[in-house]
Amino acid sequence: MEKQIKTVGVLTSGGDAPGMNAAIRAVVREALAKGLSVKGIKRGYAGLLQEEIVDMDARSVSDIIERGGTILQTARCKEFTTSEGQKKGADICKKHGIDGVIVIGGDGSFQGAQKLAALGINTIGLPGTIDLDIACTDYTIGFDTAVNTAMEAIDKVRDTSTSHERCSIIEVMGRGAGYIALWCGIANGAEDILLPEKYDYDEQKLIDNIIACRKRGKQHHIIINAEGIGHSTSMARRIEEATGIETRATILGHMQRGGSPTCKDRVYASTMGCYAVDLLCQGKSNRVVAYRNGEFVDYDIDEALAMKKSIPEYQYEICRNLSI
Amino acid sequence: MEKQIKTVGVLTSGGDAPGMNAAIRAVVREALAKGLSVKGIKRGYAGLLQEEIVDMDARSVSDIIERGGTILQTARCKEFTTSEGQKKGADICKKHGIDGVIVIGGDGSFQGAQKLAALGINTIGLPGTIDLDIACTDYTIGFDTAVNTAMEAIDKVRDTSTSHERCSIIEVMGRGAGYIALWCGIANGAEDILLPEKYDYDEQKLIDNIIACRKRGKQHHIIINAEGIGHSTSMARRIEEATGIETRATILGHMQRGGSPTCKDRVYASTMGCYAVDLLCQGKSNRVVAYRNGEFVDYDIDEALAMKKSIPEYQYEICRNLSI
Amino acid sequence: MEKQIKTVGVLTSGGDAPGMNAAIRAVVREALAKGLSVKGIKRGYAGLLQEEIVDMDARSVSDIIERGGTILQTARCKEFTTSEGQKKGADICKKHGIDGVIVIGGDGSFQGAQKLAALGINTIGLPGTIDLDIACTDYTIGFDTAVNTAMEAIDKVRDTSTSHERCSIIEVMGRGAGYIALWCGIANGAEDILLPEKYDYDEQKLIDNIIACRKRGKQHHIIINAEGIGHSTSMARRIEEATGIETRATILGHMQRGGSPTCKDRVYASTMGCYAVDLLCQGKSNRVVAYRNGEFVDYDIDEALAMKKSIPEYQYEICRNLSI
Amino acid sequence: MEKQIKTVGVLTSGGDAPGMNAAIRAVVREALAKGLSVKGIKRGYAGLLQEEIVDMDARSVSDIIERGGTILQTARCKEFTTSEGQKKGADICKKHGIDGVIVIGGDGSFQGAQKLAALGINTIGLPGTIDLDIACTDYTIGFDTAVNTAMEAIDKVRDTSTSHERCSIIEVMGRGAGYIALWCGIANGAEDILLPEKYDYDEQKLIDNIIACRKRGKQHHIIINAEGIGHSTSMARRIEEATGIETRATILGHMQRGGSPTCKDRVYASTMGCYAVDLLCQGKSNRVVAYRNGEFVDYDIDEALAMKKSIPEYQYEICRNLSI
Repeated sequence: MEKQIKTVGVLTSGGDAPGMNAAIRAVVREALAKGLSVKGIKRGYAGLLQEEIVDMDARSVSDIIERGGTILQTARCKEFTTSEGQKKGADICKKHGIDGVIVIGGDGSFQGAQKLAALGINTIGLPGTIDLDIACTDYTIGFDTAVNTAMEAIDKVRDTSTSHERCSIIEVMGRGAGYIALWCGIANGAEDILLPEKYDYDEQKLIDNIIACRKRGKQHHIIINAEGIGHSTSMARRIEEATGIETRATILGHMQRGGSPTCKDRVYASTMGCYAVDLLCQGKSNRVVAYRNGEFVDYDIDEALAMKKSIPEYQYEICRNLSI
Repeated sequence: MEKQIKTVGVLTSGGDAPGMNAAIRAVVREALAKGLSVKGIKRGYAGLLQEEIVDMDARSVSDIIERGGTILQTARCKEFTTSEGQKKGADICKKHGIDGVIVIGGDGSFQGAQKLAALGINTIGLPGTIDLDIACTDYTIGFDTAVNTAMEAIDKVRDTSTSHERCSIIEVMGRGAGYIALWCGIANGAEDILLPEKYDYDEQKLIDNIIACRKRGKQHHIIINAEGIGHSTSMARRIEEATGIETRATILGHMQRGGSPTCKDRVYASTMGCYAVDLLCQGKSNRVVAYRNGEFVDYDIDEALAMKKSIPEYQYEICRNLSI
Repeated sequence: MEKQIKTVGVLTSGGDAPGMNAAIRAVVREALAKGLSVKGIKRGYAGLLQEEIVDMDARSVSDIIERGGTILQTARCKEFTTSEGQKKGADICKKHGIDGVIVIGGDGSFQGAQKLAALGINTIGLPGTIDLDIACTDYTIGFDTAVNTAMEAIDKVRDTSTSHERCSIIEVMGRGAGYIALWCGIANGAEDILLPEKYDYDEQKLIDNIIACRKRGKQHHIIINAEGIGHSTSMARRIEEATGIETRATILGHMQRGGSPTCKDRVYASTMGCYAVDLLCQGKSNRVVAYRNGEFVDYDIDEALAMKKSIPEYQYEICRNLSI
Repeated sequence: MEKQIKTVGVLTSGGDAPGMNAAIRAVVREALAKGLSVKGIKRGYAGLLQEEIVDMDARSVSDIIERGGTILQTARCKEFTTSEGQKKGADICKKHGIDGVIVIGGDGSFQGAQKLAALGINTIGLPGTIDLDIACTDYTIGFDTAVNTAMEAIDKVRDTSTSHERCSIIEVMGRGAGYIALWCGIANGAEDILLPEKYDYDEQKLIDNIIACRKRGKQHHIIINAEGIGHSTSMARRIEEATGIETRATILGHMQRGGSPTCKDRVYASTMGCYAVDLLCQGKSNRVVAYRNGEFVDYDIDEALAMKKSIPEYQYEICRNLSI
């Protein structure tokens, strides 16, 4: 039997991502338009356990669609990984009359939503991470902005790399997932791309390619390195020594997480926010919203967490030809 | 029996779009990597008929992936709509040893490719238009950049609109297709969106909504107007008169066609360029490359031109709730 | 004898300009740091007469330095041009304990400040206008952002202009002052620049230059037109007719007023905001803060309003040589 | 007696800076317009010694004003610091008929120009460095673009810093000069700014301020650190330990050197380029072009190299009040 939702809570959890504010805004306004009340839960599950819960109206989310970060803030929370913590969280929801919660975050955040669902709070997950590393969906909130931010930074590094005929190693985010590295690799015309999924790191091969490219007349050599593959700065030192070509490392870091969201991130995050509210209104729980094969769909969280995803082969394959 | 291609020609036709250079670069380098020769045909079909044909090597397309416009330039060509012109075009291809042509453009450009194919030149179309109005594909080269350009401009108009508590009508491109208007409508948090596909233009309803929003405490009122719906400047004059609220029109115009392509436009245009060369290598002709339901595919041009496409209903529906 | 100020009011008046928020923030925080109270007056002089006055603390101006527009909003006010209105304004200041007012705006706004000063309220003006048309200062809040916004838009128009080998007329803001047009003219490599200060508009000369440039091999022809010189759209029509070269007009419009301020606008507006508070603390009144000959200075408002300013000759002269 | 120049050489030397291309373009076109010939010397003094010298015409510098880096490239050159190298350089100039050389770079590059001047080649220096650390001028080519690039990156870091309530240390360029750090400090609303000119680095004081700001309700804490002051990453580790507040370091690196130049950099670099040619035409030599006290001027290189410059006190002083 379906539960009729009256009050929706919304929280952001895990690393922040551009577009989270667009999703929050959509959740708030769609819920209000459907006659529900909305409460914002601050600092993710940590804030839930500390009852940092605020009422939200249509004006609470004015002028936020274009802002990076998350107005609800986010934090890690060890306590919520325990069953006591989860029980406490569900009780606090009930105390505040929250019968549905929309959780914007990654796989870890969805595990929390799973637990709340099991404890009688209807939950819907929205995929929010710049890393694109959520298996059930082709789109995650923040990825599009992050790759554009990284790409624009690398365009600038390339200007100076060309002027000095340097080799540049640029480290982008994505410890376990090379999507940002792959996209920037193609978009910035990189000569080499190092991905966690693909690379059997072979520095000699890299060095040989640098020398070969220089001989073909290339004025720079851009290596995009996914976070977690080696240590870019010492890699640069060794490459300079081996090739005699001036080599510098740039670690883009946290700037990739911020910034005004792109059009796609605003539109898709808004759509997903509405979609999540609609699911709650249909009495659904323990679902995650996804964009897959060109449409917005939803999966059972258990099922979603069990899925696997891999780097697109065709796009990885074309990289070498594109940088000749 | 499949024809073995030796020399690929590439041209851009119709309105230019950001990402066309990424596609040209991918065509050139993928073709060279596969052992083919490449010739650039300048100014679209017009340049073909005037034999403006240049040899291209890997260095011809260095440092263009980040540039707007098209290095091959583009032009309209009446002569090529006649069967004499088409015959002449095919003969010129043969004279220059071009046995495959990749045409980057919209539906009109594909019709030209269709004719060349019928005359024995293998042709592949790549969807290039900022308007997204090619039925067979969910992605067209340039749309992503154009909506971001429009969105960023509208963000700026919104700043000043809020400061002055104005109503602003912003006219975006898309004479027959409201995709840019719809996306900006959502991404910029517009109060009203006027689309050619949807709008039974009712100025009184618009005026009533402006007054209602002002009463709800909104400090600005943004109307996104797709090109071709009425005349934005006189619309502004009438609305100001009827509501007493200062109203201004901005027509974004040609800036929407230019600019450095976004990451998506660079990556997808590059992928499509490689894909087109691969099709030619497989002996295919009269095909158009598309992105549909989450993957890169290809269609017969005749079939592609017969398809229909419509504005996504769900996203159109959510607009009203998002702007409460 | 110097008056000891206790409470500072701050308002923005006239057209908004990026950087006004940075100035407001600086006024608020510098005043608080010096032990003063601060009140925000909303909607310029109109809001003053309607007593739209709010208390401001350090957190009232958090996260606004990077935002376009003005959080205090702005409006025109006919009533304040009358002596009754001015008297009423001064009385309202006294009623609210405001003994010093910082006015951010243009010459018209300074005239208001002059009147308040005469009525016993200490006033300091800060030059805020995107047009740079305040004679006493080499810098006005917003100009740097506006020229960058215009320049980036024109860069995009240029991409498509080159692709189509078009002539493009781009109309920028500055009805009575050609500074934006001159800067963009140089920065965008325009072939022609039409300024109110300089141009004895001669369409035949313009047409001759377009034809001459085309003969020299230029692939586009960019004309930057200051607002108020002719009608860009009909100008484009006539030029196309006379030259046979496709010609399009783009009117950049209100987007030039918005957007996140540039570094210079943030730094100079912040500095001027602090400087204005310091003047009030020194008991000064009827002064305007300026940046002149490389340093921040202040002038008597009467003196400032009497000054004259002209387009820099050297930079106007080099334009022709730069576009050969 | 004045020397009549016939052929101008132009080179860029030292670190590249956005706007160098605008300066090169201005030199080339102004020189051509004045009837001179122009030769581009590639890779700075290194390229001069290797006779990498190319003829330049008006089209050689088309479409470069908006590009970062330097089309002439740049390199270091030890050989040119010896008197043999300088003599060889002067002889190569004479061999190629180059009687005037315009050198775009920093103090080190001007020393080279000084030597060439002493050997009978007329030379003019243009100040090109993102660091603003050339004493004789208030403006250097590239600084305005670099501070905007850094500021925009820091805006993004700030988004995520606020979302996570983190402390962020951001290291900007400027080993010996804190101008970028000071400007970003003000423009990004930093809580602390560490400058080489000012800072008697006291980590305990920094830690105390972080804790005090958190108590006042600040949701993030931004520290702008000029390159060369300590090691940002280990500083972050120690601060996190001492305060219990999550602290991250970001080193912006080489992206600050690239990117499309801002309007100011394009306009001033163009003006300086023309000015330099005019000086050569007047028979001047051993001069450096500067922007000082609001106007373009020139100094004897010997005199220029002897000048001193310091961080503006007033702007450094206001930082603390602005971040309350």
